[in-house]
Amino acid sequence: MSEQLNKRIFDELESLVLIDPHTHINPHSAASTTLADIMGYHYYTELAHSAGLAKESIEEPGIDPKEKVGRLVTQLGDLDNTIQLSWLMDICSEFFDFQDETITESNWEYLYDTAAEKMAQPDWEQQVLKQSGLERVFLTNDFDDPLEGFDTKLYIPCLRTDDLVFHLTKNETRERLGKATQVDVGCASTLREAIGELFEHFTSNGARACAISLPPDFSPVSVTADQVDSTVRSLFAGDDLNSEESKLVSQFVFWTLAEYCGVYRLPFDLMIGVNRRVYEAGVYQGQDLYDKRTSLIQYKELFNAFPKVTFPVSVLTSTSNQELVSYSWIFPNVVINGHWWYSNTPAFITFDCKSRLEAVPKTKLIGYYSDMYKLEFALPKFRMYRRVLANVLATDFVINRNWSEQRAIELGKLVLRGNVETIFSC
Amino acid sequence: MSEQLNKRIFDELESLVLIDPHTHINPHSAASTTLADIMGYHYYTELAHSAGLAKESIEEPGIDPKEKVGRLVTQLGDLDNTIQLSWLMDICSEFFDFQDETITESNWEYLYDTAAEKMAQPDWEQQVLKQSGLERVFLTNDFDDPLEGFDTKLYIPCLRTDDLVFHLTKNETRERLGKATQVDVGCASTLREAIGELFEHFTSNGARACAISLPPDFSPVSVTADQVDSTVRSLFAGDDLNSEESKLVSQFVFWTLAEYCGVYRLPFDLMIGVNRRVYEAGVYQGQDLYDKRTSLIQYKELFNAFPKVTFPVSVLTSTSNQELVSYSWIFPNVVINGHWWYSNTPAFITFDCKSRLEAVPKTKLIGYYSDMYKLEFALPKFRMYRRVLANVLATDFVINRNWSEQRAIELGKLVLRGNVETIFSC
Amino acid sequence: MSEQLNKRIFDELESLVLIDPHTHINPHSAASTTLADIMGYHYYTELAHSAGLAKESIEEPGIDPKEKVGRLVTQLGDLDNTIQLSWLMDICSEFFDFQDETITESNWEYLYDTAAEKMAQPDWEQQVLKQSGLERVFLTNDFDDPLEGFDTKLYIPCLRTDDLVFHLTKNETRERLGKATQVDVGCASTLREAIGELFEHFTSNGARACAISLPPDFSPVSVTADQVDSTVRSLFAGDDLNSEESKLVSQFVFWTLAEYCGVYRLPFDLMIGVNRRVYEAGVYQGQDLYDKRTSLIQYKELFNAFPKVTFPVSVLTSTSNQELVSYSWIFPNVVINGHWWYSNTPAFITFDCKSRLEAVPKTKLIGYYSDMYKLEFALPKFRMYRRVLANVLATDFVINRNWSEQRAIELGKLVLRGNVETIFSC
Ligand SMILES: [Zn+2]
Ligand SMILES: [Zn+2]
Ligand SMILES: [Zn+2]
Repeated sequence: MSEQLNKRIFDELESLVLIDPHTHINPHSAASTTLADIMGYHYYTELAHSAGLAKESIEEPGIDPKEKVGRLVTQLGDLDNTIQLSWLMDICSEFFDFQDETITESNWEYLYDTAAEKMAQPDWEQQVLKQSGLERVFLTNDFDDPLEGFDTKLYIPCLRTDDLVFHLTKNETRERLGKATQVDVGCASTLREAIGELFEHFTSNGARACAISLPPDFSPVSVTADQVDSTVRSLFAGDDLNSEESKLVSQFVFWTLAEYCGVYRLPFDLMIGVNRRVYEAGVYQGQDLYDKRTSLIQYKELFNAFPKVTFPVSVLTSTSNQELVSYSWIFPNVVINGHWWYSNTPAFITFDCKSRLEAVPKTKLIGYYSDMYKLEFALPKFRMYRRVLANVLATDFVINRNWSEQRAIELGKLVLRGNVETIFSC
Repeated sequence: MSEQLNKRIFDELESLVLIDPHTHINPHSAASTTLADIMGYHYYTELAHSAGLAKESIEEPGIDPKEKVGRLVTQLGDLDNTIQLSWLMDICSEFFDFQDETITESNWEYLYDTAAEKMAQPDWEQQVLKQSGLERVFLTNDFDDPLEGFDTKLYIPCLRTDDLVFHLTKNETRERLGKATQVDVGCASTLREAIGELFEHFTSNGARACAISLPPDFSPVSVTADQVDSTVRSLFAGDDLNSEESKLVSQFVFWTLAEYCGVYRLPFDLMIGVNRRVYEAGVYQGQDLYDKRTSLIQYKELFNAFPKVTFPVSVLTSTSNQELVSYSWIFPNVVINGHWWYSNTPAFITFDCKSRLEAVPKTKLIGYYSDMYKLEFALPKFRMYRRVLANVLATDFVINRNWSEQRAIELGKLVLRGNVETIFSC
Repeated sequence: MSEQLNKRIFDELESLVLIDPHTHINPHSAASTTLADIMGYHYYTELAHSAGLAKESIEEPGIDPKEKVGRLVTQLGDLDNTIQLSWLMDICSEFFDFQDETITESNWEYLYDTAAEKMAQPDWEQQVLKQSGLERVFLTNDFDDPLEGFDTKLYIPCLRTDDLVFHLTKNETRERLGKATQVDVGCASTLREAIGELFEHFTSNGARACAISLPPDFSPVSVTADQVDSTVRSLFAGDDLNSEESKLVSQFVFWTLAEYCGVYRLPFDLMIGVNRRVYEAGVYQGQDLYDKRTSLIQYKELFNAFPKVTFPVSVLTSTSNQELVSYSWIFPNVVINGHWWYSNTPAFITFDCKSRLEAVPKTKLIGYYSDMYKLEFALPKFRMYRRVLANVLATDFVINRNWSEQRAIELGKLVLRGNVETIFSC
């Protein structure tokens, strides 16, 4: 009985056209040009490498895309149990009508050519958007992105601030900041002024969010301009900072970003808990992991200081999910934002989704984002989530709390779409 | 098939009259007088506030109870997915025959008046106890509670000790201690003597437990009277203590409480892992959260030092559930005590209950307590737990380990009631 | 429907003859001689003690085996809900044809005698191996085990190194090292030479792994011979080391072990997260617990430094399971190894198994090991795991991802057997 119920709810959720609230799409080449854009992404290169394929073979400089796919195919057999590979199979069946159960050394070239042909169609990007039921897609833009040459109604800019907070000690970052804002930064107040210019530029181009990824040991504290002025002066004068000083600058920049989010009424996406380059010899973007010894209590001062700023929060370790549920239950300005990266597989999504839906006001749950690099990934990843969501709605609400199917479907649609519109005002 | 099995087991468990081993009931006004006593409780004020209702509107001084409920109703629509709201709906349907699916601005006044009328009946308290199947209810009493004016057979006193351990540095606490014990505390030994008086007073009035809630970083260590004597002398002489000194006094008081629990054979409920006032601008009792970076190994010295004291332990973060299962599996004096606060929603209860029932001797599991402030909350909260327990017994024991239904039901009854009687000897 | 599917997959997995990749079997007396060998094991003594049976009664010196079983039986009634006790009941029904639901004071002596009779049969060891479907069994050998007098094809040696890394400061350990290797250790290079001798001895006797159990705070770092030479010299000269110095020696020995695992191409089993003797007055082997505040990021330097060494990793706290999944997803040399001790009950096995199968290349998953002290434990423990695995394969792969039953069964067999053969090359 419950299987039909799941199916009916799933079909309703699948019919809903979505806004994807967090992606890494390049709006100038949003869809793939060959299967290598998909299989060459870290989802597959890191797994193939982990299963034994040498990094040098995958990332040989100048390798022909088809050759690269061919090499990856040799390792796919070891990955067919992974949900990541099932996304690839969904892409191939949905977009390229590929019906075989697995991609093998005998059928991959036919698949590659079929895909390349379809991807070469001039309206391929629109085809993918349509077939995936995507109406708008949030981007992740460098702070000095001119935001030109694409439709900001479709691809919604979002100010990514990792560089500003963690890499201002790099000469290159400071140059980019100067160029992008035309502010000659040399002290705390001119630094603040420059950051304000970024917000002006982004919001005037339709940006709907500010975002940052944060290491597990980050504890934001208020740092005033006076406290940090001399350090900023020496930084922009080209001096090296010790770790204490660079930490002080990071805190100042982060706090300033939160202040501007208040001024410009932009939600500030916090993606908490990633350690970069843990596996030094890993494939490109296949090096990051995490330390689960972190707590949202590190954000106490931030959440108390900015009641008017909405913080959509993602946590990398699922052991932080309960804290996220509890902090969003209590802090009005903390909103739960999707299932991120290492917590984005059905076992974790299912438990985290159940625990969120039963304890946090339904208007504070952003169900899912694709985190995709290429458009083709939206369909399989949202489908994976919709299947879990339909299952949770059927079991926990229709069966266990005898909600009507209609009422459960409305909850699902609010979490999938409605809350994205209200929280990101788009 | 398994749905009928669940139902049969659930019905058996529902028929069992219970002793509630931990509540915050005021025995002098145990039941509610209006719906505001229920909806004005932090379960709903914190969620309404979290969903957008201003604290000032909820907690306007001198607000009329009906007006308060009316304001809360405006926000209920955003909370209908939460299990907390389903407790309210259960209360309204079970006690006030309220049949609508949700409480809306059009039906709440009729509900309010019906409830007020019923609550005004002189035997309303007995009606609620009877309908909820509650025979005895543990209280949480301040250390200077005279324990007079109520039936200590029905409402079982329990010595709450947070003030003694963490707030002895407050002048007011020391005065209350002097008044309650008639001991002129001025040094370590007179402090110990006063604490002894409290145990004498509580046990002579039928107390069955001592209890305390503890922050995640608390690590109890043995502190002797000699070590702390000079500090206690200066404290009671009115001097200010630094943080090291107040920590020393806390440790001494806590260790002394454990000693007296041994002398008076009282279980010492440890409720581990709460950080107070994390959300400073939160509603009353809607400010506390937690830091999951804690371990039961912090209690190694305590559990080893007091083999004769039973420690019923509750953990706030569900990431500590496995440690609680393992420590209760190994330490004879560690008993598992219910599902607390942020771990008291079906997703966490289900997993924690499964992992406990399959690994810890069944005589060491106190299944559930309501933690209620008003009697009306017992029925919906115990019902939520009974539903989970029935489900776990049906799946893990009857189906997976082909236990007879009768044997599974007996396990359920032991965990729900039998163990409360033996562990708290009541 | 899914119950029949579960059953079919379970039966296929049960028919598979296995290699047990980690046990504590003594090859000179692998099977039990009386029921006391089984019920006298810490699984049952710690639970009986935890439920109230005095340690002195269980571990009375010189107690007659039958008397000991009789005493334990008095407490079994309190443990019948535990999965550990269901292993005992499986052993009694499978091997001794015991059909009663529970072991009671009226039926235990008949059981004891039946068992003793069967165990006395000269081929009892082969009977158990055959009935359990075990073809080869990994051992845990002290570093100075001569590895003589047993068939190393059946019982595969494994170099256990806890003593070398954590107890070299004990005189006795240093004497054993000298005797076993005939190397007169007195400095860093002779210490390294001696460790090399151990690898030579073990691999020439068919050893297939090196193994160690590690406390939650262990963070391996590279220590060179020069850095540690003077400390090793003073250690072997009989001087006492302070904690810093003994930590340095531990790190040097551990790093040297990893180096030799590279040279001899031996997988290095890391069993991470146990704190020894937490419950000081516990029964033998019933004293160890853990602190969940640990992270695999502590092994970053190790995993990066030894790309050619395979690290089969077990974690004691299930809150580290997600890190293990993610680190094995990313690091080619990190392999997931079974369900260990406090995480070895169905609730944890089920969630951990689901999260592993859907995210890590299938060739990197060692499904289960029995960790047994006596051969009779393999059947019930592997059966518990096979039941969980069959359930996960049926639900997550056949139903949710419409895999064929055959394909799901093959995944199960790879995880149960195939990967043990390839990863441990046996
Ligand atoms: Zn992202
Ligand atoms: Zn309480
Ligand atoms: Zn072991």
